[in-house]
Amino acid sequence: MLKLIGFDGDDTLWHSEGYYREASARFTDIVGRYVDLGDAQVQAGMLATERRNLKLFGYGAKGMTLSMVETAIAITEGRISAADIHALVEIGKTVLQHPVELLPGVREAVAAVAEHHAVVLITKGDLFHQEKKVAQSGMADLFHRIEIVSEKDVITYRRVLGEFSLEPGQFAMVGNSLRSDIEPVIRLGGWGVHMPYHVTWEHELENGLGEADAPRMLTVDTPSAIPAAIAQLAERAGT
Amino acid sequence: MLKLIGFDGDDTLWHSEGYYREASARFTDIVGRYVDLGDAQVQAGMLATERRNLKLFGYGAKGMTLSMVETAIAITEGRISAADIHALVEIGKTVLQHPVELLPGVREAVAAVAEHHAVVLITKGDLFHQEKKVAQSGMADLFHRIEIVSEKDVITYRRVLGEFSLEPGQFAMVGNSLRSDIEPVIRLGGWGVHMPYHVTWEHELENGLGEADAPRMLTVDTPSAIPAAIAQLAERAGT
Repeated sequence: MLKLIGFDGDDTLWHSEGYYREASARFTDIVGRYVDLGDAQVQAGMLATERRNLKLFGYGAKGMTLSMVETAIAITEGRISAADIHALVEIGKTVLQHPVELLPGVREAVAAVAEHHAVVLITKGDLFHQEKKVAQSGMADLFHRIEIVSEKDVITYRRVLGEFSLEPGQFAMVGNSLRSDIEPVIRLGGWGVHMPYHVTWEHELENGLGEADAPRMLTVDTPSAIPAAIAQLAERAGT
Repeated sequence: MLKLIGFDGDDTLWHSEGYYREASARFTDIVGRYVDLGDAQVQAGMLATERRNLKLFGYGAKGMTLSMVETAIAITEGRISAADIHALVEIGKTVLQHPVELLPGVREAVAAVAEHHAVVLITKGDLFHQEKKVAQSGMADLFHRIEIVSEKDVITYRRVLGEFSLEPGQFAMVGNSLRSDIEPVIRLGGWGVHMPYHVTWEHELENGLGEADAPRMLTVDTPSAIPAAIAQLAERAGT
């Protein structure tokens, strides 16, 4: 029986990745003025830096900004001007201040799910930034608990379930990232509703889900389809 | 009756500010090569940037690093080299990787307090970095709960007390910062044990405590004195 439904924040409740994409495009523009490299090469350099720094910085816009500065200096072999590095820091600040715009119909979808299940928001990244986004979303009142976590893996979901004294089979997670929202929950024995966002950070695309996992998950293309998907999974879970 | 004792992390359980001081000294060295300013002026510029950025970055080493980059570019009027900006990013990484060294006797002190009261760790700053420090401290097992928060104010302490269904008068906080650990708890109606660290970030020195607050707090100079101070406050609180 499904007792608890988790919702992801970024790109599930509110738009996020688009702002990172915009930052990435501006970064590529600035760095591109110094080097004879294609955008794809510059972006590959950035992704490599970000991956290397993840274990030190964790997720979020501040770490991304530091990785932009580091990548820009490396790619330009130190030729980038201080003014352009300052522009990179300003790009990071823009991401930290982006408006919080809900996906259409998402508030209604969460409210409908909350009529039948406890709901919790599980969002990953920078504590300070995520708290601000949660506050600005105006959705905090809908959730029984808000968990801001540094990583969404099996260990994190197990801890959250432990706090609610639930078995994994009683839990479903709704989110846009197969890697962070769906795979670890299914690995634990839970359920997933995947709602792809139109753009996804490359790092979040990696996952080990396969055919055998299909019965534990559903894919929807819009928030308004979430309540029916949860109802369907609840039926599978046995009510 | 005292039911819950909160402990701060940085500079209460483990050394921290010294690493930030070291970073600040290296920052001043690098920037000082470009300008004819005293160390105090450079550091005042840095503090002003950090204060301005707090509402965007929150606390922690990543925000500090971004503020160092921004300050260095401003103070040198863009003359700082990319190589030196890279050195600033590396300074930030060093802070993020500093070893976690416990204050002498602090484990025994927390264990002794935990014999009579529930104990919780309430630490402020970057989620990812604080989680790593808590893990490396080897002290996680001593605490009933670990709260990593973005700000330590009246609102935060009220929320924590709510989670434990306690009144402020049943709670005492132990920490090195009058601003973050002692004042808000006393304002709520709780108790405080102040254990000054030998260096304190200027921002944390600001507080509005006065003579009238003296009965709600005690000052100790070493972790081994914490259990007796808690016992004394417990007596004042009425056992």
